[in-house]
Amino acid sequence: MKYLVGVDLGVTDIKVGVVDKYGRLIRKDSIPTLKERTFEAIISDTAALILNVLDSEDIEVKDVKYIGVGTPGIPNNKEGIIVRNYTLNFHNAPIRSEIQKHINLPVFIENDANCAALAESVAGAAEDYDHSVTIKLGTGIGGGIIVNNSIYSGFNFAGAELGHMVVSMSGEKCTCGRKGCWEAYASATALIKQIKEAAQENPESIINKLVDNDYSKINERTVFEAAKQKDEVSKVVIQKYLEYLSEGVANIINILQPDVIVIGGEISKEGDNLIKQLRDLVYEKVYSKEVSMPEIKTAQTGSASVMIGAAMLGLY
Amino acid sequence: MKYLVGVDLGVTDIKVGVVDKYGRLIRKDSIPTLKERTFEAIISDTAALILNVLDSEDIEVKDVKYIGVGTPGIPNNKEGIIVRNYTLNFHNAPIRSEIQKHINLPVFIENDANCAALAESVAGAAEDYDHSVTIKLGTGIGGGIIVNNSIYSGFNFAGAELGHMVVSMSGEKCTCGRKGCWEAYASATALIKQIKEAAQENPESIINKLVDNDYSKINERTVFEAAKQKDEVSKVVIQKYLEYLSEGVANIINILQPDVIVIGGEISKEGDNLIKQLRDLVYEKVYSKEVSMPEIKTAQTGSASVMIGAAMLGLY
Repeated sequence: MKYLVGVDLGVTDIKVGVVDKYGRLIRKDSIPTLKERTFEAIISDTAALILNVLDSEDIEVKDVKYIGVGTPGIPNNKEGIIVRNYTLNFHNAPIRSEIQKHINLPVFIENDANCAALAESVAGAAEDYDHSVTIKLGTGIGGGIIVNNSIYSGFNFAGAELGHMVVSMSGEKCTCGRKGCWEAYASATALIKQIKEAAQENPESIINKLVDNDYSKINERTVFEAAKQKDEVSKVVIQKYLEYLSEGVANIINILQPDVIVIGGEISKEGDNLIKQLRDLVYEKVYSKEVSMPEIKTAQTGSASVMIGAAMLGLY
Repeated sequence: MKYLVGVDLGVTDIKVGVVDKYGRLIRKDSIPTLKERTFEAIISDTAALILNVLDSEDIEVKDVKYIGVGTPGIPNNKEGIIVRNYTLNFHNAPIRSEIQKHINLPVFIENDANCAALAESVAGAAEDYDHSVTIKLGTGIGGGIIVNNSIYSGFNFAGAELGHMVVSMSGEKCTCGRKGCWEAYASATALIKQIKEAAQENPESIINKLVDNDYSKINERTVFEAAKQKDEVSKVVIQKYLEYLSEGVANIINILQPDVIVIGGEISKEGDNLIKQLRDLVYEKVYSKEVSMPEIKTAQTGSASVMIGAAMLGLY
């Protein structure tokens, strides 16, 4: 059996994993991206890390089938480039040919959120299903759509920008320039803003105690922690946030009716506590109540998701 | 070559067409649905109409490959039933077996909006493309999603309810019970409401003259007619309506990035006049400006769309 290599080329870290054909991680390692460097320096270090990880498992390059790379931005796998990646400042970056200067293997390129969705489809919460949508609640809302077990990203590879679905015309300003995008209400960033505002307006809230009145310590799970301590303010914040989250999830269901919606990101660690409330709110909103509703689950592949999904790119 | 039969089982009329494998309509006929009748009576008349249409072209049943039926509601083609169709009051209606009591041929069943999308994909505005989304602006907003030249409707056949994507949380009440659905802003019904309100508020508007102050005569194209006569009130109504329409179209592009978005319904007869303005508004709103945007076109298969799409069900 040949091994597969998955690379998560991220803004902070470059992670490399050796994966088997079932999407199981055999070994991984990571280095800081140091994104201010040149593209060539970043890829050179990525290639060296790949060779190191292979070496530590006594795997030779000839025993590897291909390398898959997941990175933010719009990929063009046909050309082997990233068309545009703002966070890493790549513009028509020839990732395939640059890696192949160091390692002679086929190279596949894909958007990182799409890789995470593929990882969930192959070896995670969606593994028993053909159609899934994975939503990552982070700085923004990243999305990946799986149709018939493969990534669907449209004719130009730029689809699944689920966070940039407007749910409130003329609403909150989004980083993309539009108003009312879902991620301006339901990303982790949006939740943290909602928590801060509630804490400021309600000095008696347990949120303030939990962070010693230092709002820079607030993260997306603070409000759940406070709610467990019976903080009423936090319960209101969570309820409102889940309303926002459910509007977008219900929209995705009305449009795509995947077998399963997979929720990832730090918030998803709240598990059933979160999913049950979310499912009830979504059910109220879906259009077709005469048929079963897609399942809603938390992501299972965690911080390895992009690596695992990237490693699967040549198989699905 | 075997012939294909497509049936548009609608609320007002039952239309039957004989179609060739390229989606070209050879002959068609229609009868009123008289929807208050029993399901059995409706299907019995449908079967008689099929046999009549075949007979008038001297085609025998053995020269027909199958019958495809497009009808409102949620289909289950596996079971050969319509799970639920509110407008015709069908509930788990066994369309396949009921037709087969009269004609011994395979029968495929699909939602009518999905059929229209397939017709555009096979023989209409999307025929040169793999991925398309067809939007019909009518009483509501119907939608059909084509992925890799086939209908995509999710695991439960209930997807592509594009009109029930909320674009304005807590906004206009929708017939589905939710608030802020796209169809409450951008359907033909919504446009007619917007035109009436503008005409009432602006007695000097040409709209009032065009309909002799009889608002029941207003249809979705009245406002375009008035705008051609330089009516400033109408220009404002159109601009606002196209803003609403563009919000949903941009959302669909951000999510699905199909090769082409096909706009159907009476409004689409405005043609380039409409499409050009819409495209400019959509371009402002799409997330990924570094790659080409999907094309936006008007539907080409017109009132035959459901028949043609239904006739293609066994081929795609």
